[in-house]
Amino acid sequence: MEEVLGHRFDVLDKGFVRVVDYMGDDGAIVQAARVSYGRGTKKVHQDRGLIRYLLRHRHTTPFEMCEIKFHVKMPIFVARQWVRHRTANINEYSARYSVLRDEFFFPAASELETQSKSNSQGRSGVGVADCEQKAAKIREAAERDYDLYRLLLNEDSDNDSTGEGGDGGGEGVARELARMVLPLSTYTEFYWKCDLHNLMHFLTLRADPHAQYEIRVYAELMVDLLERWVPLTAEAWRDYVRDGLVLSAYESEVTRRLVRGEAVRREEVKELSDREWRELGEKLGLKAGEIYGGN
Amino acid sequence: MEEVLGHRFDVLDKGFVRVVDYMGDDGAIVQAARVSYGRGTKKVHQDRGLIRYLLRHRHTTPFEMCEIKFHVKMPIFVARQWVRHRTANINEYSARYSVLRDEFFFPAASELETQSKSNSQGRSGVGVADCEQKAAKIREAAERDYDLYRLLLNEDSDNDSTGEGGDGGGEGVARELARMVLPLSTYTEFYWKCDLHNLMHFLTLRADPHAQYEIRVYAELMVDLLERWVPLTAEAWRDYVRDGLVLSAYESEVTRRLVRGEAVRREEVKELSDREWRELGEKLGLKAGEIYGGN
Amino acid sequence: MEEVLGHRFDVLDKGFVRVVDYMGDDGAIVQAARVSYGRGTKKVHQDRGLIRYLLRHRHTTPFEMCEIKFHVKMPIFVARQWVRHRTANINEYSARYSVLRDEFFFPAASELETQSKSNSQGRSGVGVADCEQKAAKIREAAERDYDLYRLLLNEDSDNDSTGEGGDGGGEGVARELARMVLPLSTYTEFYWKCDLHNLMHFLTLRADPHAQYEIRVYAELMVDLLERWVPLTAEAWRDYVRDGLVLSAYESEVTRRLVRGEAVRREEVKELSDREWRELGEKLGLKAGEIYGGN
Amino acid sequence: MEEVLGHRFDVLDKGFVRVVDYMGDDGAIVQAARVSYGRGTKKVHQDRGLIRYLLRHRHTTPFEMCEIKFHVKMPIFVARQWVRHRTANINEYSARYSVLRDEFFFPAASELETQSKSNSQGRSGVGVADCEQKAAKIREAAERDYDLYRLLLNEDSDNDSTGEGGDGGGEGVARELARMVLPLSTYTEFYWKCDLHNLMHFLTLRADPHAQYEIRVYAELMVDLLERWVPLTAEAWRDYVRDGLVLSAYESEVTRRLVRGEAVRREEVKELSDREWRELGEKLGLKAGEIYGGN
Repeated sequence: MEEVLGHRFDVLDKGFVRVVDYMGDDGAIVQAARVSYGRGTKKVHQDRGLIRYLLRHRHTTPFEMCEIKFHVKMPIFVARQWVRHRTANINEYSARYSVLRDEFFFPAASELETQSKSNSQGRSGVGVADCEQKAAKIREAAERDYDLYRLLLNEDSDNDSTGEGGDGGGEGVARELARMVLPLSTYTEFYWKCDLHNLMHFLTLRADPHAQYEIRVYAELMVDLLERWVPLTAEAWRDYVRDGLVLSAYESEVTRRLVRGEAVRREEVKELSDREWRELGEKLGLKAGEIYGGN
Repeated sequence: MEEVLGHRFDVLDKGFVRVVDYMGDDGAIVQAARVSYGRGTKKVHQDRGLIRYLLRHRHTTPFEMCEIKFHVKMPIFVARQWVRHRTANINEYSARYSVLRDEFFFPAASELETQSKSNSQGRSGVGVADCEQKAAKIREAAERDYDLYRLLLNEDSDNDSTGEGGDGGGEGVARELARMVLPLSTYTEFYWKCDLHNLMHFLTLRADPHAQYEIRVYAELMVDLLERWVPLTAEAWRDYVRDGLVLSAYESEVTRRLVRGEAVRREEVKELSDREWRELGEKLGLKAGEIYGGN
Repeated sequence: MEEVLGHRFDVLDKGFVRVVDYMGDDGAIVQAARVSYGRGTKKVHQDRGLIRYLLRHRHTTPFEMCEIKFHVKMPIFVARQWVRHRTANINEYSARYSVLRDEFFFPAASELETQSKSNSQGRSGVGVADCEQKAAKIREAAERDYDLYRLLLNEDSDNDSTGEGGDGGGEGVARELARMVLPLSTYTEFYWKCDLHNLMHFLTLRADPHAQYEIRVYAELMVDLLERWVPLTAEAWRDYVRDGLVLSAYESEVTRRLVRGEAVRREEVKELSDREWRELGEKLGLKAGEIYGGN
Repeated sequence: MEEVLGHRFDVLDKGFVRVVDYMGDDGAIVQAARVSYGRGTKKVHQDRGLIRYLLRHRHTTPFEMCEIKFHVKMPIFVARQWVRHRTANINEYSARYSVLRDEFFFPAASELETQSKSNSQGRSGVGVADCEQKAAKIREAAERDYDLYRLLLNEDSDNDSTGEGGDGGGEGVARELARMVLPLSTYTEFYWKCDLHNLMHFLTLRADPHAQYEIRVYAELMVDLLERWVPLTAEAWRDYVRDGLVLSAYESEVTRRLVRGEAVRREEVKELSDREWRELGEKLGLKAGEIYGGN
């Protein structure tokens, strides 16, 4: 972790993730657990075993003993999802105090995918028609919006050469108000600090295939950083949370019958909707059908 | 729910749970979800289906839109576990302001069970020897401690007849200090308010068989109240959370093989500890053994 | 409060605040305090006195026993400030699930004020030049951005007539991505629920003259609703928090000298910066000068 | 700070405070603020000035960027107050997993003070009669309670010689239940981690003269550690928060009149209760009386 401290890992076209500081490691989790469970932890001789035990039994407090602070730069529409994780501390760049730069997220033309039919919150994997043209329009609109922002601020173009954004001074519209014309693709940045337990919760939701692609790429990078920082915890998280299965009571009942070698027909399990029946097949690695099992 | 509002449900020998107030119901969850997901919720026509969808996909925020306030009376060693749930609001009876009454939790002699061998935090289900004698000693010790408390407070015994506890006045030791001699079995009480999402999390942990019996009885009663308050949500919670199965990645892999009709030998799955192998058998309803499956 | 439940109070040009539900009132605070402080509250006979005592002595937990749920519609740049109050529960309209409508905040031309010279986060009170022209450009830019949004979604104009926004379907760009071209002035809405203690904290910060005008108008309306809901608490909050004075140790020392009739010269108080010296004069109702007091 | 890292500072008769780890310092606050306020912070050239500005204007988020982890040992009745600060992370020694040692808080006989007449939650500063005798009874009661605890656990006295507490094994009562006979003076310990903003809030409440003596001594020691860790922030906290004055609107009005050289008579300010009138005199360094000011 020390090796990558402060390093800017690029994400999207202009964003980044950077570890600013951290506190604790796998050893600190074990240390906290041994204070809590005292002699009760003696039987678990190794750190790996103890960490797996803690995660498996939802003893979450030892994981709260580690803390990490990131510096992240991302488009505002991504930031809006990010800040919904309320257990973190945030210091965001303020567009009331400072002028925003002309940096916008521009997806590659090939990334302009159509709406998914099956997933009302996601995309299909298929590109749209006229994607080059659409990508160009997105660029032009952002530039036009930024021109208006500068006009409102009464910024003269020379300030721009500093690469820092100007004061937004002169007799222009106040910064806090002028920003309203900028698009949601505008980049912002913040310091984001949270404990390991809440970081894993964030990663569980945001490194998930159902998360929006533009936030998922940040989360996936942070999973790599998690591996560096707390390798034993990262392994346990992958095993028990990310790659594990959650079965409902009804699904569990079907699974137990299948394991006993019984065949289960769709019509026998009215409690499951068609969608849940199909998903159960996927979870168990079965081909979708009217009957599962009975080999 | 209106019928039981304010009703004191007895728990343990002198404790109780009472619903003081609540806000929202199953309908309020649906209402909040429809604001969030807009047209995206149109396909889910019924409230039940929508609530199940939300819980299954970890869309937890609509459940935070309901709030409930309990008045609970419990022994201090139970309260110490309870307050660890930090997302709730609490107003506890203050022993700095007021004198504590002589009310203590006295387990029935038959409830004095021995330490569990397999579960380092639980009990065995088997009673101890000399249980009547031990139960009597517990009572005597509490009474003796309370006598000392009153002596320190300089309380005269007539105050007691008011049934309210006295002022702890006279020239006695300050209440905030005198209380230190009272045992952890002393009853306290508080108002406890939290949202439905966090209540379900509390119940998941505290109505669990691994929770200490003395807090579990409170949680179980609150599960009954949950059913009255938000029946659709309670059903979904039982199905997806309480009675569901969580399988790790390694366990999932074994399960998929079993479902396909394969036999899996203990020695093939070195990643699972002996304990996890045994637990997997229990989860899937199999007899413990060196081989699972292969019927 | 019952009278205005569900009523939409207009804010800005297209926003609103609506009380959806609430739990508790001044009486509930008193009730919770009496559980906590028991006999300690007997001396405070009246509710008003007790509520003032609680607020004055920072006994905040009884205020957490009341809860309120609002439905609020506001521009995204306002929502971004709002959600920084992390102790509330939120369900926001999702632009991943649904198409955003063509509703934008358009300030009146006269509201386009210049940047404040003295306050790096605020505005001056003075209008900009060419305000009508600038206001028109803001409108045109929003409309152009929305046209691009619809083009990306492949929405045909007939859908619009439903007044609901369409499905964003066809073969257009996925909703979650298309939204990135919309400006920060786009209206969003959410359910927002928090307890009374945290609501007062929100109002202290956001009904403050230093808060951005566009969020302050929401907060000011909510102060009116606070008065309706919990009049005794609202009065105590105004007296002790909103309209009270906070003096630093150095300022307190100067104030004590002034109260004793002494004159205090600027140069005697090196610990105060020029700005703090000036602000102290304002706090105490004195004319700015090199000497305070000594009448 | 590095010098005292890991050092056990004694508190009370058997307790301690120990800094286990920390993240950030005054510089990290400044760093976070400069990300947030960007060019807006340029005018404040020095770290000290910026930190004072942030604290004075309630810009609390930069202070959340520092984190500290303590190991604390304290009596249970102190721990019960401590854990009410819900924004911290805690790992407490578990009496379900391990046997508690025979360590109890025994106040010196001279510390057994009587109840305060004026402050319903505090003590008077005057010792009780028969203090030696009472202190002895407190000791005896704790020892008797501990004997019962060991009897319930079926511990044989040899285990004790390990100095670690035994397994509580044999056929004794389960640890989780046996603990109920121990007094609130029993020592417990935990890891306690929180951010600097919340630490200061904790210290404001618990290093206050109205806090119970037994928790105040911990808080006062932690104030010393705060000075070592973040000296600029500690100074600003003392100046603006701990040693500052908060005046209500009515009190402010009286203060402004006094500063102008007017005399104010008690009867003119009916909005203030007798107690508030007296307290105002104390705040302003005036002798209690019917008239303030008018020199």
